[in-house]
Amino acid sequence: MKALASRRLPRGVRITVVGSRQMLQKAAEVAGVRTPAEAAVLDLDNFPTAMLDERRPSAESGRACLEYIVRAVAEAKAGRADAIVTMPISKEAIGAAGSPYPGHTEMLGALTGVERPVMLLVSGGLRVAFVTTHLALRDVPRALTRGAIVQTAEMLAGGLRQYFAIPEPRVALCALNPHGSDGGRFGDEESRTIAPAADQLRRSGLNVCGPLPSDTLFTRALAGDYDGVVALYHDQGMIPIKLAGLAGVVNVTLGLPIIRTSPGHGTALDIAGKGIADESSTLEAIRLATSMARRLR
Amino acid sequence: MKALASRRLPRGVRITVVGSRQMLQKAAEVAGVRTPAEAAVLDLDNFPTAMLDERRPSAESGRACLEYIVRAVAEAKAGRADAIVTMPISKEAIGAAGSPYPGHTEMLGALTGVERPVMLLVSGGLRVAFVTTHLALRDVPRALTRGAIVQTAEMLAGGLRQYFAIPEPRVALCALNPHGSDGGRFGDEESRTIAPAADQLRRSGLNVCGPLPSDTLFTRALAGDYDGVVALYHDQGMIPIKLAGLAGVVNVTLGLPIIRTSPGHGTALDIAGKGIADESSTLEAIRLATSMARRLR
Repeated sequence: MKALASRRLPRGVRITVVGSRQMLQKAAEVAGVRTPAEAAVLDLDNFPTAMLDERRPSAESGRACLEYIVRAVAEAKAGRADAIVTMPISKEAIGAAGSPYPGHTEMLGALTGVERPVMLLVSGGLRVAFVTTHLALRDVPRALTRGAIVQTAEMLAGGLRQYFAIPEPRVALCALNPHGSDGGRFGDEESRTIAPAADQLRRSGLNVCGPLPSDTLFTRALAGDYDGVVALYHDQGMIPIKLAGLAGVVNVTLGLPIIRTSPGHGTALDIAGKGIADESSTLEAIRLATSMARRLR
Repeated sequence: MKALASRRLPRGVRITVVGSRQMLQKAAEVAGVRTPAEAAVLDLDNFPTAMLDERRPSAESGRACLEYIVRAVAEAKAGRADAIVTMPISKEAIGAAGSPYPGHTEMLGALTGVERPVMLLVSGGLRVAFVTTHLALRDVPRALTRGAIVQTAEMLAGGLRQYFAIPEPRVALCALNPHGSDGGRFGDEESRTIAPAADQLRRSGLNVCGPLPSDTLFTRALAGDYDGVVALYHDQGMIPIKLAGLAGVVNVTLGLPIIRTSPGHGTALDIAGKGIADESSTLEAIRLATSMARRLR
């Protein structure tokens, strides 16, 4: 509600909130903002949301979340929305509601029939796509197939062309091991898998650098040397994204037939209902969804 | 030579350069600086260094490097130096010279009889100690024993007390897996090894937070929430250190009987002899060695 009431909201955008009108009014009161006239509410009144406690994940609140997402995706697929911006959901709540999905990305893939959607994080000039996400670190080396790396880089390059108006994107590919294994002294994934994936991408005409040691790569990416980065595992990409993202981190799903962005943070249930949440990332997510949709037209 | 000629050199410090007077004069000419009057040179004239090409690692240059390090350590052990600041060395050169050590840290450990020296990186307000360093990522999970984590954290806390004048250091411990494994959903190293190590450290009276997801941890560390961070593997700590270290990254070895710092970058042989190297990190390394030595008195 703070984001919707903000002067920083992009101009000329019509927003429909898929959710409970009662909960939204309560939130506006807590945040001390007026319900903005511009935002329509698509209230799915088959949920007794007036009864929900926003601080406690429950099967009921999880069911409501899932239903809102399904409806938002349906609006976008039917062409009644140019993009969707999802809000953080409680994994505990959707789990209690029986959802088989660990998070938004997997659920959006299933709802749109896309097998491998790619997570792209955007913040402070960095754009990072992930080959693996919620996977134990010990399982990461085996999950890094040449095919998965190639697909992620291609999806990133496609997204940069389509949504960010970068006709010839410069993509940097992270190494897995310290110093990129220093010529095979610690690990061999660079020579066995990552470098061959980079070669394949270059042969297909993509401007790809790497594999490059990830510690120096991100400094150069922040300096503007690359348009996008392929990270091999969660923390490799998330550490720099969060450090660069003081103004707000945005999560984008690439590979879907619809545009989807989201603030890069979680539910922060510990401060729910206190009116102190920071709306910056949500505003950034709305701003990015708007610019992506305008570039696609 | 640029660092020694800089006005930013700390006051009241007597510096002895262990190296070849001829090479240093050549470097001063290239850099366009005057050889500073304050710096004495300890020339080990048993090397034909006049013949060396600074751009090409060779067995001769490697032998000279090793000899300079041995002598600098001897000066410090004998009490004729309060600290040593090492310059980057070429791994290729010391390898060609027959050195069994992959780098400075291991060599300094051997020269001072310390089995497990700890690497501490300092930059932009971050201080990060490493449990593992030059190790393939796939071997990291197995190398993370409770003992190694406890020892690294204790060494870090000891260093912060002794050299940084922080009597009760607040130490943050990184998790290994995304979101710290999210309650065991991806990986179990947090519950099996890292959390027990943190508990042991807390029982011994240390102020330890964690294990904490590393992506949010470093943002909080940069904001000043912790005095030091224990990183579990190279890139986990090096990515934030390099991003935070625009003013210069300094490498400190903890656990030695002598004070040792070093600029956090490599040899940069591609720009050797061009006079364009940035002396900031070397100045920071001298500055930190000076302040550590003064705190120890």
